[in-house]
Amino acid sequence: MKTIGYAAHSSEAHMQPYHFERRDLRSNDVAIEILYCGVCHSDLHTVNGDWGDQPYPLIPGHEIVGKVIEVGPQVKKYQVGQHVAVGCMIDSCQDCDQCHNHEEQFCRNGVTMTYGSDDRIDGNTTQGGYSKHIVVREEFVLNIPHGMDLAKTAPILCAGITTYSPLRTWGVTEGTRVGVIGLGGLGHMAVKLAVAMGAEVTVITRSNKKEQEARSMGAKGILVSTDEDALADSACAFDFIIDTAPVKHDLSIYTPLLDIDGTLVVVGQVGPLEELMSVPLVVGRRRVAGSLIGGIEQTQEVVDFCAKHNIYPECEMINMDSVNDAFEKLAAGDLAHRYVIDMASLSVN
Amino acid sequence: MKTIGYAAHSSEAHMQPYHFERRDLRSNDVAIEILYCGVCHSDLHTVNGDWGDQPYPLIPGHEIVGKVIEVGPQVKKYQVGQHVAVGCMIDSCQDCDQCHNHEEQFCRNGVTMTYGSDDRIDGNTTQGGYSKHIVVREEFVLNIPHGMDLAKTAPILCAGITTYSPLRTWGVTEGTRVGVIGLGGLGHMAVKLAVAMGAEVTVITRSNKKEQEARSMGAKGILVSTDEDALADSACAFDFIIDTAPVKHDLSIYTPLLDIDGTLVVVGQVGPLEELMSVPLVVGRRRVAGSLIGGIEQTQEVVDFCAKHNIYPECEMINMDSVNDAFEKLAAGDLAHRYVIDMASLSVN
Repeated sequence: MKTIGYAAHSSEAHMQPYHFERRDLRSNDVAIEILYCGVCHSDLHTVNGDWGDQPYPLIPGHEIVGKVIEVGPQVKKYQVGQHVAVGCMIDSCQDCDQCHNHEEQFCRNGVTMTYGSDDRIDGNTTQGGYSKHIVVREEFVLNIPHGMDLAKTAPILCAGITTYSPLRTWGVTEGTRVGVIGLGGLGHMAVKLAVAMGAEVTVITRSNKKEQEARSMGAKGILVSTDEDALADSACAFDFIIDTAPVKHDLSIYTPLLDIDGTLVVVGQVGPLEELMSVPLVVGRRRVAGSLIGGIEQTQEVVDFCAKHNIYPECEMINMDSVNDAFEKLAAGDLAHRYVIDMASLSVN
Repeated sequence: MKTIGYAAHSSEAHMQPYHFERRDLRSNDVAIEILYCGVCHSDLHTVNGDWGDQPYPLIPGHEIVGKVIEVGPQVKKYQVGQHVAVGCMIDSCQDCDQCHNHEEQFCRNGVTMTYGSDDRIDGNTTQGGYSKHIVVREEFVLNIPHGMDLAKTAPILCAGITTYSPLRTWGVTEGTRVGVIGLGGLGHMAVKLAVAMGAEVTVITRSNKKEQEARSMGAKGILVSTDEDALADSACAFDFIIDTAPVKHDLSIYTPLLDIDGTLVVVGQVGPLEELMSVPLVVGRRRVAGSLIGGIEQTQEVVDFCAKHNIYPECEMINMDSVNDAFEKLAAGDLAHRYVIDMASLSVN
C-alpha cells in the first residue's frame, strides 16, 4: 500500500514528508488508517540519535489511534471499520517465558518496536505512526472501547501504559501514598491514573507554579523539591514514588521520602543518574527500580481503565506539518500535556 | 557492676582498657558475662568517626556471645547459666508499627544500638561487647541453641543477620540464582546461608584467587567482575544479588546481571555509590535496594537456622589486646573471615 509519513532523514531531526510502501497484508495482519498519533519525548530522543544510531529515513510515532481498513484472512478480533490502537511494540517472538507471561516488552528474543526495528519476517525497518497508514499483526493491535474520545486516546498508548504498569506492578491501590516526580507528559498521566486507583497523590515538583494544575487532576497537593524544610517534613511520607523527570537528576533527594520498604520507580529519563546514596536505601530497606512500558494485555487494560474512569491525557492537537515546532517546544520544557497529530491534516497525495 | 572493656577515646581509634560500670539490673534485664565478641567492619567505621561524631570513650562490639549471670525479677525466658547472644540492637520503643512488626531496626522512635546510643531510660551512652559484661533487656537477648560452637556463633549476630534478612525478604529459596558480590566477612556468610536455602550461588569477585574458597563454601563458582566477556555472558543470569562490597563502587556493572524483575541489595558499604545507569533498571524492571540487619525475631531465626544447618562464619580467634592489630588488618583488606575476641583474655582486674 502506498502511503505517506513524516520521516527524519538524519539526526538533524527535521522531519519531512516521505512517500513509502506499507507491506501487503499477511494472514494475521490488520491494516489501519491512522487518525491520530501522539508525540512522545522518546520520538524526539530517537530521531535525534540520543539513544544510538538510527536507520534513517525514520518515521517516529508510537501512540497510534485509527480505524481498521482491511484484515488478513486469519484475523479474528478485528473487523473493517473498528477503532483500534497501536502502541510502542508491534511484534515479539511469542514463544519465550516473557511473551507467555504477557510481558512482550521483555521478550527474550528482542521485541520489535513500532519504529526503528527490523521487521521479524522481511527485515525491513519498521516505520511509526507519523503516517497515514500502518500494518500490524493482530496480536499487537488494541481495541478502543466504544465511545472513547479518539483524539485524546492516543497518548494512553505510551504515556498511559508507561505509568499504569508500575502502579500495578507495585500494587498501588486505595490509600497508597503516591508521589509523582514531574508533571509533564508522563507525570500528569501518573497522577490521573493513581487518583483513579484510589491513591493519595502528591506531585513532587521544582516550584509551586504547577500546584493548581496538580490539584485539578486530583492530586492532594504538591511537594516542592527545592524546599529543604518541606522535604525533611516529608521523610517517609510515600509508599511509592513514580519518577518521570526527563533529565539527569539526584535520586537521593527523593529516596528519603519513601517509607520503610517503599519503592521509587524511574520511568522517565533514560541515562545516567547522579551518584546514589546508599544510606537512605539501607536504613529504610528502600528500593529504586525501573519500569518499561507494559505488555500488550496490560496496554489493553489501561485503555479500558481510562474508558471506564473517563481519564484522558491533556492534549493539544496539531497538524502534521507543525510537528517539528512541537519537537522544539518539547525539547525546551516540561509541558503538562501531550501533542497529538491530527492525521486528517496529512494527505496521501 | 564494675567491669572492663576496650574503649576508643577519640577517632584515633586506638582502643585501650577502660574500667566502667554496667547498670544495676532493671526488672526485665539480663546480665551477661561475655565469652566472645566478633569484630565487625562497622566497629572500625564507628570508632574512626567515619559515620559521624561519637560519644567517646566508646566501647564497640555487637556480635556478643555469653552466659547469663543474673536476671531481673520479671525475666521469663532466660536463667542463670544459659548461653545467650546480643546483636546490634539492645532496645527500641516496642510500640510503633515497625516494632510490632518485628522490625525493631526500623523503630519509628529510633532504635537503641548496642554501642554509641543513648540508653532510653537513663540516657547514658551504651557500651558494646569488647568488654567483660553487658546488661540488656530480655527482649533483645537471643537464645543460643544447645550444642552450638559458641566461639564461632558470635559473627552470626551481625554478619549473619545482615545477609540472612535480605535473602528472606526477597524470597530466596530452592533454585534461586543468587550472586554474592565480595567474599569478605558478610559475603562468605551470604554464600553459606544462601547455599543452605537451596540457592544456586555464584561469587562475584574482582579476581579468580577466591575460587577455591567460594567452592569450598558451596558456591557453584565465581564470576570475575573485571572480565567483560564473562560479564556479558552472564547478562540476566541472577534472580538476586547481594552486594557486600565495602567501598564505593559502580552498581551498573552488576545490574545487567540481574534477570527481569531481579533485585540487587546493598548490605555492605554505606555511603555514595557511583552514578547509577537507569537503562539496565528500566529495560529489565530491575531493582536496587538496601537492607539493614534484621529484627530480633529474625535474628533468633538465623541463629537457629545456623544451628540446624551447622553453618558457622570462618573465624580467627584473637585476644583482647590484639584488637587494634585486627582493626588494621580489617582496614587493609577484604578478609574472608571474621575476627572473634576470646574474652577469657580480658581480666576485670
